[in-house]
Amino acid sequence: MAIAEKHLAAEFNREGQCIIDHFTYAMVSDGDLMEGVSAEAASLAGHLGLGKLIYLYDANDITLDGPTSMAFTEDVCARYQAYGWQVIKVDNGDTDLAAIDAAISEAKADGDRPSLIWIHTTIGFGSPNKAGSEKSHGSPLGTDEVAATKLALGWPADKMFSVPAEVRKHTGNSGVRGRQAHAEWNKQIDQVRTNDPGAVDSLFARFRGELPSGWAEDLPVFEAGKKIATRAAAGDVQNVIASRVSMLLGGDADLGGSTKTVIKGGGSFDGRTGIGRNIHFGVREHAMGAICNGMDYHGGVRPFCATFFCFADYMRPAVRIAALVGQPCIYIWTHDSIGLGEDGPTHQPVEHLMSLRVMPNLDVVRPADANEAREAWIYALKRVDGPTALVLSRQSLPVLDRGRYGSADGLHRGGYVVSDCSGSAQTIIIATGSEVEIALEAQELLIRHGTATRVVSMPCIEAFARQDKSYQDSVLSPEIRARVSIEAGVTFGWREYVGDAGEVIGVDRFGASAPAAELYEHYGLTAKAVVDAALRSLSRVSSR
Amino acid sequence: MAIAEKHLAAEFNREGQCIIDHFTYAMVSDGDLMEGVSAEAASLAGHLGLGKLIYLYDANDITLDGPTSMAFTEDVCARYQAYGWQVIKVDNGDTDLAAIDAAISEAKADGDRPSLIWIHTTIGFGSPNKAGSEKSHGSPLGTDEVAATKLALGWPADKMFSVPAEVRKHTGNSGVRGRQAHAEWNKQIDQVRTNDPGAVDSLFARFRGELPSGWAEDLPVFEAGKKIATRAAAGDVQNVIASRVSMLLGGDADLGGSTKTVIKGGGSFDGRTGIGRNIHFGVREHAMGAICNGMDYHGGVRPFCATFFCFADYMRPAVRIAALVGQPCIYIWTHDSIGLGEDGPTHQPVEHLMSLRVMPNLDVVRPADANEAREAWIYALKRVDGPTALVLSRQSLPVLDRGRYGSADGLHRGGYVVSDCSGSAQTIIIATGSEVEIALEAQELLIRHGTATRVVSMPCIEAFARQDKSYQDSVLSPEIRARVSIEAGVTFGWREYVGDAGEVIGVDRFGASAPAAELYEHYGLTAKAVVDAALRSLSRVSSR
Repeated sequence: MAIAEKHLAAEFNREGQCIIDHFTYAMVSDGDLMEGVSAEAASLAGHLGLGKLIYLYDANDITLDGPTSMAFTEDVCARYQAYGWQVIKVDNGDTDLAAIDAAISEAKADGDRPSLIWIHTTIGFGSPNKAGSEKSHGSPLGTDEVAATKLALGWPADKMFSVPAEVRKHTGNSGVRGRQAHAEWNKQIDQVRTNDPGAVDSLFARFRGELPSGWAEDLPVFEAGKKIATRAAAGDVQNVIASRVSMLLGGDADLGGSTKTVIKGGGSFDGRTGIGRNIHFGVREHAMGAICNGMDYHGGVRPFCATFFCFADYMRPAVRIAALVGQPCIYIWTHDSIGLGEDGPTHQPVEHLMSLRVMPNLDVVRPADANEAREAWIYALKRVDGPTALVLSRQSLPVLDRGRYGSADGLHRGGYVVSDCSGSAQTIIIATGSEVEIALEAQELLIRHGTATRVVSMPCIEAFARQDKSYQDSVLSPEIRARVSIEAGVTFGWREYVGDAGEVIGVDRFGASAPAAELYEHYGLTAKAVVDAALRSLSRVSSR
Repeated sequence: MAIAEKHLAAEFNREGQCIIDHFTYAMVSDGDLMEGVSAEAASLAGHLGLGKLIYLYDANDITLDGPTSMAFTEDVCARYQAYGWQVIKVDNGDTDLAAIDAAISEAKADGDRPSLIWIHTTIGFGSPNKAGSEKSHGSPLGTDEVAATKLALGWPADKMFSVPAEVRKHTGNSGVRGRQAHAEWNKQIDQVRTNDPGAVDSLFARFRGELPSGWAEDLPVFEAGKKIATRAAAGDVQNVIASRVSMLLGGDADLGGSTKTVIKGGGSFDGRTGIGRNIHFGVREHAMGAICNGMDYHGGVRPFCATFFCFADYMRPAVRIAALVGQPCIYIWTHDSIGLGEDGPTHQPVEHLMSLRVMPNLDVVRPADANEAREAWIYALKRVDGPTALVLSRQSLPVLDRGRYGSADGLHRGGYVVSDCSGSAQTIIIATGSEVEIALEAQELLIRHGTATRVVSMPCIEAFARQDKSYQDSVLSPEIRARVSIEAGVTFGWREYVGDAGEVIGVDRFGASAPAAELYEHYGLTAKAVVDAALRSLSRVSSR
């Protein structure tokens, strides 16, 4: 959120008119500060000098299983200083509100460093028997202990809830204070509007998530016959989109050169000025994902981020939150299969496609060629209610001749007939990404063999599953039960689309290190294998 | 590795005889130290005071995309000091071998703290055009630059490889040094054997991964009619096993009270003495998984670790390494579905079962009741060539009457007929974990309705898939095509077992916060829903 705030402030504030100007507060616990993702984020926040980010650290020395002395005895304050943060201490967070208030003022005063306010507190404060113990962490105090606590604190025992007059007065005034602040802000907005009406319209449009008209027109069209990696094509498309869609803001985990996601001329994001559209997240995939969620929560920006597909595992908890909340973050995950070659099994995703497809509300899009890659970017940007992953090849893939084959905008329906046969098909080959090329080769062989074959490109299973049944049936005609799926990943799951009589081709074990072409041969991802499987499936159907 | 070393040293070393006594070295890079998992591990290592752990940090200021100044400007040394590490600096790691050697000696001398040796180096040292640049990070120098580098370093240009005489002499002697060290170690072993022959046999057996005879006999048998959460039953079984299998060493991520995985009487692992079998990993799931891998690499211990199933996502990259390498780590993941109730969707796994089943070489076991939970622990311990996950319920589940139902040891074949009908079945219900109870209820309703129904408990799809076809066909008889699967998770993937005519019941969206029973109703995980689905499937089969 602090990144988005800084970035929008740089673009929309004017001398004397601060229309984007707020602090970002986080309430953090011992547990939060043990998690690796918070370490990654804090290191980056320190590097960027996000002075308006303020943590209130509820240091109560207790976690679920007992005292922090069991597992967490590092010097947290010194660690945050090492990250370049301002650290402020409050010894008595139970009752010393003035000290907390002073600490917040001090935190706000340092514009160059994020601040950690270490506040020592007693968990379950006031409870005679459970204060300072894990007993007041994971479970309610219970009726008796609530009564004892009220007694100990001198609180009225007879009412379930009681609100002291001074609290009622303070909170009752919050509406007044809010109205005043809003009126002052509107005044600033009006001043900006007078001088620069376009800026205000643009800002509001960005907060509504509106894309500028024409943003998807005249995007690059890739010529048939060339060979282009989908990561390269996607990078070209993204750059044109970025030149039109100013709210696109993101970056990569030290792999921008490989993922091709750098916005050219966009500059590196500078946390001190807020200028720059390429965020160098460092080798911090989990925080990268989480920060994108934070940027989306803030609004006014459209976050994207990129790394190798294999490292999607590192950011999976953040992706899940985006999916659960319905945030339209865009993930660009390249080097999408054993096709990456020599880096070997640690870097070769095989289970990742399926493992991400099963996550509710995440759309996984794996384009077959450069023109599908263009449509994939359009698809991702149009999506408003959940995250989209673009899963892209490292290796070059032939650009399909769309005169001969189905239009690439079939991608928007998740799956489409990329190549049909004359007359009614006897068999259907379903493929995604780099394997569509193999499916088309197999189709030629099968047709030569006298078997009428249809090829379906299925870049996004989730989108296909949302189509109406008549469309689905027009692509995967129920009467054509001889089917083969081919994808350079685990096959489990494809039964849904190939049916009982079908065959699945994929990689059901970890990969290996070799040039991509050799690996495809080794793992049996070949046109010949597809042909054999199609004929087996056909004979199974005929024999029934 | 340092934990395993310390733990085994405490158990097997005798006064004057150190048979387990080595340092653990790690070569770490800028990128490694940016990743959250390394932060988690370093914080824990400092807490535990693992004095024999030594990092050699190759600080070359360069990552894949460019200088570390782009994203990584924290004070790493101060951070490690905050973790409680000893930090030693070497300014010239390119040529000053004496300084590195002295630093290692200093690191070794501090027995109470792990050591970070910061060694400033030049990446691509000696290369006239690529030294100190990211150009020598991700790609080879190339023929010309190799030649130029040899020239610059005064190295023979005419040979591909050249080994100076002093290097040859030093490395040539490594065999001699090794033989000497081995002989000295054998002498120590002999001395221990003289005094305590059992200890040496036990140590060697542990390094061979051998389980003591009788370890799986007379494990707890749970009485039918009771209601026990599988996490609770598994905890009881684990405790008996732990009393017999001394190499079992592990812990939890601040959830031992909930996962029920604490070894009673085992003590908390103390990094200074090496004593204690329960490692308090803290809220550090990713490092917990990675440390288990390290303990297995070391050998002599059998690592397990535990957290909520939802947090399996946090440790997924470590699980993948265990699966890829073939390490028999054991994961206990509890609170396995929407059945955990009020904690809500962030804590309710729905996609996790399927997302982990697609990972090659990981076996995911979800027992249906307390007795299957016992078999699950046996299954996990018997596995030697890959990791096993035990996925356990928070909520209580009825203990099935095994006089009436199939034996729980059917679990070892992955899936088995838990309840058949008299005569040939018309329909099969396949269920896992907590949903087997619902399947059995549905079976009663269907039989009352006159539909002969079989129920299959399928705790481990991976194991079932490895059975021979005749066994698989005896459980899922091919002629019975009316089938229903029920599992409190995403349904994608179950088509493999229910077939074209089958029906799938599950949770294809994120969960919600409510008591477990209400959620099961809300999501349609009921006996009634299974009955309806079975009848639909049956009518589909009949109409064909």
